[in-house]
Amino acid sequence: MFKPSIAVDMDGVLADVYASFITMHREETGVLLTAEHLVGKTEAEAFPHILKHVNSPGFFSKAPIIAGCQQVMEKLNESFELFIVSAAMEFPNSLKEKYDWLAEHFPFIHWKQIVLCGSKSLICTDIMIDDHFKNLNVFKGQRTILFTQPHNSIADPGKHHRVENWEEVERLLL
Amino acid sequence: MFKPSIAVDMDGVLADVYASFITMHREETGVLLTAEHLVGKTEAEAFPHILKHVNSPGFFSKAPIIAGCQQVMEKLNESFELFIVSAAMEFPNSLKEKYDWLAEHFPFIHWKQIVLCGSKSLICTDIMIDDHFKNLNVFKGQRTILFTQPHNSIADPGKHHRVENWEEVERLLL
Repeated sequence: MFKPSIAVDMDGVLADVYASFITMHREETGVLLTAEHLVGKTEAEAFPHILKHVNSPGFFSKAPIIAGCQQVMEKLNESFELFIVSAAMEFPNSLKEKYDWLAEHFPFIHWKQIVLCGSKSLICTDIMIDDHFKNLNVFKGQRTILFTQPHNSIADPGKHHRVENWEEVERLLL
Repeated sequence: MFKPSIAVDMDGVLADVYASFITMHREETGVLLTAEHLVGKTEAEAFPHILKHVNSPGFFSKAPIIAGCQQVMEKLNESFELFIVSAAMEFPNSLKEKYDWLAEHFPFIHWKQIVLCGSKSLICTDIMIDDHFKNLNVFKGQRTILFTQPHNSIADPGKHHRVENWEEVERLLL
C-alpha cells in the first residue's frame, strides 16, 4: 500500500516550548507572560532570555507535550510514512535530549524515522507540519500545514493550511 | 548563481571508521586485519565486535579523517549547496560527537549544512556520495556516487558511479 510521507516538526508542534519559555521567563523575571504579550512576536522578541533557556541542560528533555499529539501521531504512523524532522543543529547539546524525549513520549517511533537537521530545505516528503514559515517556505514537498503558535497566529498563512491544534490535524489527514 | 545540492555521507566517506575498527579489533583480539580479510564482507561480518566499538564513548569524535577530503570539501562548499548527511540515529550517543568532529575538521561547514538522520529516504539533493548501497538505493535525487570501502569494493556499482578516493571526487565534480 502506498503511504504518503509526512515530516512533523518537534518544537511548537509536538513539544510545548512556549509553556517552558513562559515558566522560565517567570522564574527569571517574576513576570507571567500571557497570550497578549506573545501574539505576533517572534519567540526571540517575546522571550529576551530565550538563548539562555534553550541552552539550559534539560530544556528539551523536560519539555511538556502538546495536547493530543501522541494519539494522532500513533494513527499517522499507521497511515503515513511518518518522520519527525527537527531543526536542532543550532543547539548541538539538544540532539541527545531530543532523541530521549521522542523515545519517552513516542515509543512507537523508530530511530529510522527521526531527522535532526539544520536547514529543512533538503527534506523531501509529501507533507510537512511546522510552526515556522522559514521551514515551510523552503520545503520541496506538496502540502504544507502551519501549526498555530503565538509567533505565527496573526500572520497570513499564505499557501499553507493553518491548523490550531492536533484535533484539526486529525480531521485534516485521517 | 544556481548551485546543485550535494549530500555527503560521514562514516566511510569523510571519517575513516575502518581505520578505527582495525585498531580496536587488534586491541580486542591481537589480530591485525588486512585488506584480504575485509573485502566483500559487511562491516558487521568483518568486525564481530563492531557494536561494542561504535558504542564506545569517543569512537566518533576520535575517528581519523579520510585522506584529501578536507581540501575537496572546501572547494565543493563553494560550488555546491553542500550538506553532510549521516545516518547516525541508530547510535544516539554519537550525535554530539559527530557534530563536534565536523566542527573540528570542517570549520567552514555551518550547522545549517548538517543532517543527522535515520533513513536517508527523505533526503532530496541533486547528488549523494555514500559508501552504502542502502542509502544510495533509496535516494530521491539524480546522481549517486559510491565511495569505495572494503564492504562494497567487489560489488557491482550498478547505476551508481564508483569513486576510489577524494581525488576522483574532485575530478568528477570540480
